[in-house]
Formats: sequence, structure tokens, C-alpha cells
Amino acid sequence: MIKKVLIANRGEIAVRIIRACREMGIETVAVYSEADKEALHTKLADEAICIGPAPSQESYLSMDRILSATIISGADAIHPGFGFLSENSKFAELCEQCNITFIGPDSKVIASLGNKQEARNTMVAAGVPVIPGSKDAIYDVETGKKTAEEIGYPVIIKAALGGGGKGMRVAQTAEEFEKSFQTAQKESQMAFGDGTMYIEHFVQHPRHIEFQILADKYGNVIHLGERDCSVQRNHQKMIEESPSPALDESLRQKMGEAAVRAAKAAHYENAGTIEFLLEKNGNFYFMEMNTRIQVEHPVTEWVTGIDLVKEQIRIASGEALSYTQDEVRLTGHAIECRINAENPEKGFRPSPGTITDMYLPGGKGIRIDSAIYSGYTIPPYYDSMVAKLIVWAKNRKEAIRKMQSALGEVIIEGIDTNVDYQYEILNHPDYRSGNIDIEFIERL
Amino acid sequence: MIKKVLIANRGEIAVRIIRACREMGIETVAVYSEADKEALHTKLADEAICIGPAPSQESYLSMDRILSATIISGADAIHPGFGFLSENSKFAELCEQCNITFIGPDSKVIASLGNKQEARNTMVAAGVPVIPGSKDAIYDVETGKKTAEEIGYPVIIKAALGGGGKGMRVAQTAEEFEKSFQTAQKESQMAFGDGTMYIEHFVQHPRHIEFQILADKYGNVIHLGERDCSVQRNHQKMIEESPSPALDESLRQKMGEAAVRAAKAAHYENAGTIEFLLEKNGNFYFMEMNTRIQVEHPVTEWVTGIDLVKEQIRIASGEALSYTQDEVRLTGHAIECRINAENPEKGFRPSPGTITDMYLPGGKGIRIDSAIYSGYTIPPYYDSMVAKLIVWAKNRKEAIRKMQSALGEVIIEGIDTNVDYQYEILNHPDYRSGNIDIEFIERL
Repeated sequence: MIKKVLIANRGEIAVRIIRACREMGIETVAVYSEADKEALHTKLADEAICIGPAPSQESYLSMDRILSATIISGADAIHPGFGFLSENSKFAELCEQCNITFIGPDSKVIASLGNKQEARNTMVAAGVPVIPGSKDAIYDVETGKKTAEEIGYPVIIKAALGGGGKGMRVAQTAEEFEKSFQTAQKESQMAFGDGTMYIEHFVQHPRHIEFQILADKYGNVIHLGERDCSVQRNHQKMIEESPSPALDESLRQKMGEAAVRAAKAAHYENAGTIEFLLEKNGNFYFMEMNTRIQVEHPVTEWVTGIDLVKEQIRIASGEALSYTQDEVRLTGHAIECRINAENPEKGFRPSPGTITDMYLPGGKGIRIDSAIYSGYTIPPYYDSMVAKLIVWAKNRKEAIRKMQSALGEVIIEGIDTNVDYQYEILNHPDYRSGNIDIEFIERL
Repeated sequence: MIKKVLIANRGEIAVRIIRACREMGIETVAVYSEADKEALHTKLADEAICIGPAPSQESYLSMDRILSATIISGADAIHPGFGFLSENSKFAELCEQCNITFIGPDSKVIASLGNKQEARNTMVAAGVPVIPGSKDAIYDVETGKKTAEEIGYPVIIKAALGGGGKGMRVAQTAEEFEKSFQTAQKESQMAFGDGTMYIEHFVQHPRHIEFQILADKYGNVIHLGERDCSVQRNHQKMIEESPSPALDESLRQKMGEAAVRAAKAAHYENAGTIEFLLEKNGNFYFMEMNTRIQVEHPVTEWVTGIDLVKEQIRIASGEALSYTQDEVRLTGHAIECRINAENPEKGFRPSPGTITDMYLPGGKGIRIDSAIYSGYTIPPYYDSMVAKLIVWAKNRKEAIRKMQSALGEVIIEGIDTNVDYQYEILNHPDYRSGNIDIEFIERL
């Protein structure tokens, strides 16, 4: 069993992991940058080691410093959280070589799923629906155009190494294709130093539906239902919920089975997420598999009762899953709002600074995963998400009301936040009726 | 349906009720004493009315001021919370006369259950087990002694109007009887102006097990399982949990059926609690019925998922119960620790004052019902309980660890609290093994 975990992360997810470890009787080691001396995760862990200056490249992304801290502190495992090194196969591989348990899947699995084309091929072979698209990599406009015609317009052109919307363009018609392809390829070369592209059928107005997976070392794989993460701004999720208002039991079963098949095909171990695009007609397509804990994992935890971070640690320790698929039940409805230090009225400009006064709500059905406290200074170097407000109620309608009531109680002074913006989104008739897709926010 | 609720209370329970109303779309009116101008409930409600000076007699216990505030604000209902006027049948009756919905049972039911002897007679007639004891009131030592011999020693002598341990004495043997009776009667006369006594078999080392009841206006009565409140100091509960480690499914069913029978016999409506003493041999005895929401209601809410305050409001609005007994399921394990502003090292002396800095934990399975915030000054006039920390986990062992981890995170500066004391209790081998009774704390 794992005895001491180094948490290679910061912010609320580091706090989340420290709490799980503490409850399991596992010692914790935080690492922190010079800017994070007063951060909550630094204070909360049993030990804390400074690993360098504020820029992530010199601290939270520095593999050698994190590995050194692990070895020096005597930790036998690393939890990577999300972001930073969490999906870096090289880092996972170094952990394996140093005989440190990486709390996540095998490095080869991370590498394989991180390559979009390879992941897609795996899914096709396993019978998991994927968006019709180019079988081979495409390097030039002519081949691309021919392929697009075979697939059928609209199509989306994507960089093989892409992410976060970079190197990605839609072509609604053949006339648009050439320009879109060239722009996307140029962007890809700029951002990733690579012009390898592929082309897919463009799914119109899809929902983002993802399935949580747990898989142990013994081939047991279950899913914990779905999360609907369709409320996004610039491909960044803002509000997530479980269950999705778009799924009935039969579709949930169908998509859940596909998700389990996907994880099995990838020889996956630990917690992971299969992201699908869901069309209005009920067709769904594999997008990618995230090989880490997700920001939005609490909504799944609340409707299933299962502690995902503890399960990650148990699986990494070699324990078999203690749940069968039949034992997983979704009860009630959970919603998460990400609370960001940013100003929605000024183009969502980040708003780091000192929190001069703070009051966060509590009570029945309220969960707060946060990295902030009154008097804390949010440094300007990192992601603007500083807290997550999660609610649970017996149905979606009550959960929305609870979230609005809770958002109404939040006081965070000294910085700007998106709390009022989130409140307004929950007021929108399309959100309330569940009639949303990934372009919902853009249409506002 | 109720449109506007006046909350005739203060502290965390007032906040709890305001939140429930807000989530139901019901307007709220807080009442506050001059000492509570900066209290959380005063700030959080839609309206707030000052009803007088700090001493409760002149504000929170002043029926006419509260009724005036209700009429002036146009509220159509009063939620009494717990303590103060919550079990005052006269107040409930005045509400009825003023055509204000009292969110609780009928005034006659409160009066009838508030009289120990009458309540006992009701239970006997309904076949609910009661502690063998005197059928009639006892006024003198000689009659008392004869009755005690019939019942069998040890016996306990109690004031008919008693409560909070006043006018109560145990006699282990016939030799002790005379002195114990006289002391108890004298105390009763001093405290309640009444020397009416009764005598019961004294249950040795019992657990305090209470069942949560919900009853609508249409005769539907269900129970929501038990709470084990055996961890008490001076008859004040400190830690409560659900389910009880002492109950198996068969005993739960037996006691639950008795609780439902008790509520039906009392023609009970709304949320209420049947308190039992449970002996090691599995015998249980009706103690009393509390005709209000309890401090410890959150542990029941968490294992059942049911919002008790919302149910209270729905029932008072004339709605039928939306759950059948079969639909009530206890899932996982919940524990509540009461956080008091007091100094355990100085005889639990109350510690009012200004909170100069505060940090409360969050995350999975953590609920905080609190009336405090950083910068808030706790006034010296009221109960020392200022917050409740409630945890949920999949079993008792994990819940204890979670509670300890959470208590370890709590920072409340500027006043003394019992947080460390609670932590130590949770460390005690008897608590950890579940081997506790109501004298557990006294034995420490």
C-alpha cells in the first residue's frame, strides 16, 4: 500500500488530493513554487518542498525537480492532479524508472491515448463510434479536399498534435476548404512545430458528454455515468452536471458500454474519462480519453457516492475495484460551477490579487473545493480557477435553485470573479430547460 | 403554498431555514435582537426586523413581538427552528389564532407531548415500549418508596415538568430512596414551582437512539432511520451519527415501527423525533417526542438524501409526503460534531468574542452549517453552539477519519472552541469501536 504521496500540483486539486490521502492515513508532501509559499496546499500538507520560481516551467512542470523532491522526501507515489504533468507520458515513464508509483495509467497508455490518430484507430478497432474522418494523416490541400468530399461536409480540419482549439478550422463547404486547411496547418506549425493534419465530419451543435471510468490492474472496468459539460467558453468548461438532461437510461447504457469498451481497448488502468460528442439525434462519437482526474469529478462523486481520488490511490496500490457495474447507481442531480478570478465584463481578463474578505456558503447539498482563504493573494502565474462550487439536490430543478442560492451568498472581495456571470447563465431559459450544446455560451 | 416565512430564531438554524426557503422560492423575514444586528441570519434574509434587546425574554422569546413582526412583514408562516419558542404550545396556538401557519405540529399535539405523563400514557396505549414506572403522579416519599419496590431498583425519580437534568435523581437501592426523592422534589419546586414527581426503572448504561419522523396531514407517517446521540456531556449532545453502530436491520425495523406507531398515536404532523433509550440487550424504551427540527437533523439528511426543512414547509403547506417507507434508504454513514465557542480546559466555560480569523474545511463529504464568519463577534447571550461540522463517507470508519481530517483543518481564532476536544473524543478506542452509551463522556 502507498504510504506517502507527493502531490505534483497546486490549487484546489492539490488540496483535494491532500484531504483524500489524510483520510486514508497516507502522508502527504506538497511541492510549491516561490509564488505559492502561502498557498493552501503548501500549508495543508504534512511536508512542503519549494521547487523553484513562479513560472511553471521552472517548478510545476520541472520533472527533475519534482522527482528530486519525491526521492528526498521519501514519498513512494506521485499524484499528478490535472494539467501540468498529469498527461505527460515522459513524466509517467520517469516515475516508473525511478520506482515511484505514478497515480494514473501506464506511461505507454498515456502516450498512446495522447496521440489523436492512434487513439482513434484503437477506438475504431474496438467498435467505439468515432466521427467519420480521414484514415491517414494529411499534409496537403489536394488530398484533404478529396478526403473531405468522401466524408461529406461540413468538415473540421485538426492538427494531429492539437489541443485547446489551436490548429483547428471548420469548412462548411468545398469552397471554404482550401483557406481553412491552410490556416489550420499554419497554426499547427506555429504552435506545435508540425503540419500533420486530419479531417473529420463536423458534428453540428453537439453536447459534450463524458463518461467517468474506473479500471483496476485486473481487467475490471466500470463506468460511473456521465457528465454533461456542454457549457463552455472558448473550449473551457464552465458548468458541469451529472446526470445529463439529454440522456435517458437506454442511451446512458449504450454510451456507458462504449466507454467501457474504449477503456478496455486502451488497456486502461486507474480513473479516466471518455469524452463524446452527442448529436441531437442520439448519435455519439468518441472525442478523446483524458488519462487523469478531471476538474469536474465532484459531480460524479456526488451522484454515485464514490470518492474518485481515493479510488485512484487504491487502484495504484494494486487493489481490485470494490464496486461492480450493477452497484453503481446515480442518485439525484449534481452541478458544478467553476469560480474563476476573472472579470467577465472585461473580456474575462484574469484578476489575480489579494482576497480582502471572503464568505462562502455552506449547508445541505453544498460542496466547496477551493484553494483560497481570506487574506490570500492569488498569484498571476496560474490558471484563474480558484474554487469550485458543487451542489446536489434530488432533481435538476432543485439543484439549479440551490446553485443560484449558493452563488448569491458568495462574497469574495478584493478581486473580480465570474460568480454573477455564472448566476446569470443558470437563469437562462435554455440552460434551465437543459436545451444546451457546446455553442450555448457563444450564442449569448 | 406558503409564500413568505418569518424565522423565529437565530444562529445556524435560522441560516439553515433561510437557505431552504430561498431554494423553494419563498421569501424570508429574519427577526433579530439588538445584539444580533451583524448576525449571519440578519444579513442573509430578504428582510430583517429588530424585535428588542439582547435577553431572549425580550426578543426571541417575546411572542407578541414576533407575532407583530410577522403581521407587519406580511409573512404567512413562522418557522420556529429549535429551542426558543419551538415547542411552546401557547405560541403555536397564538399563530393558529392569527391565521399564521406554524411550521410544526398542532398546538394541542405539542401540549400533549410536552407533558411527560400524558405522552407516556399515549405511548402505553399505542403499545410503544416505555420504561416500567409509576402510573400516577407521586407527591410523597412513602408512596414513592412503595412504587419503587414494585418497579424494581435501580429507579430514577423525575419531576413531571422537568428537563435538562433538573429535578432528577437516581436511587440504586431502597436505602438511597428517601434522600434522592427529597432532593429531586426540592429542585423541581425551585425550578418549576411544582413538586409533582414520577418514578421509573433506571436503565443502566443506555444509548440515546432517536428516530426521525415525517408525518403529513393525511395520516401518512414514515421514519427516516435513527440517529445515535449517545455522546453527551451534561445531557447536551456533542456528536451524533446515523446509522447507529448498535442497530442491525431487524432492530432498526422494530424501533422504526414503534416510532411510527408513536407518532400516529399522538396524531402527529410535520417533522418530529422519537427519543428512545436502548439497553445492551436490545430492549428499548420511549423517552420523549421532540416536536421540532433537531440540531442533529443533518446526519439524517445526508444518509437519506431528504431535505427535512423543505419537507417541514411542504407538509405545513398541505402537501402529502412524496416518499413511502420503502423508498427511504440509508446510504453510507454521517457524523455531526457540534462546534461550540467554549473552553473545554476551563470547565467548558463559554467563550464569546470576536472571530479574528477563520478557515473552515470543504471538499467531498463535508457539510458546514454555521452562523459565523471572519470578523463576526459572537454575543454572550445565547447558546455556545456556533457551527456544526457534518461529514459523510461510505462507512463509519471512513467517516470518523474524514471528521478528524476536517476538524484538523478548522481555524477559528479570537475565541476558544471545542474543536480539539472533539478530535480527541473521535480518537477514543470506545468511540472508534462504537462501544458508547450516554455516560461515555462522564467516564473520560
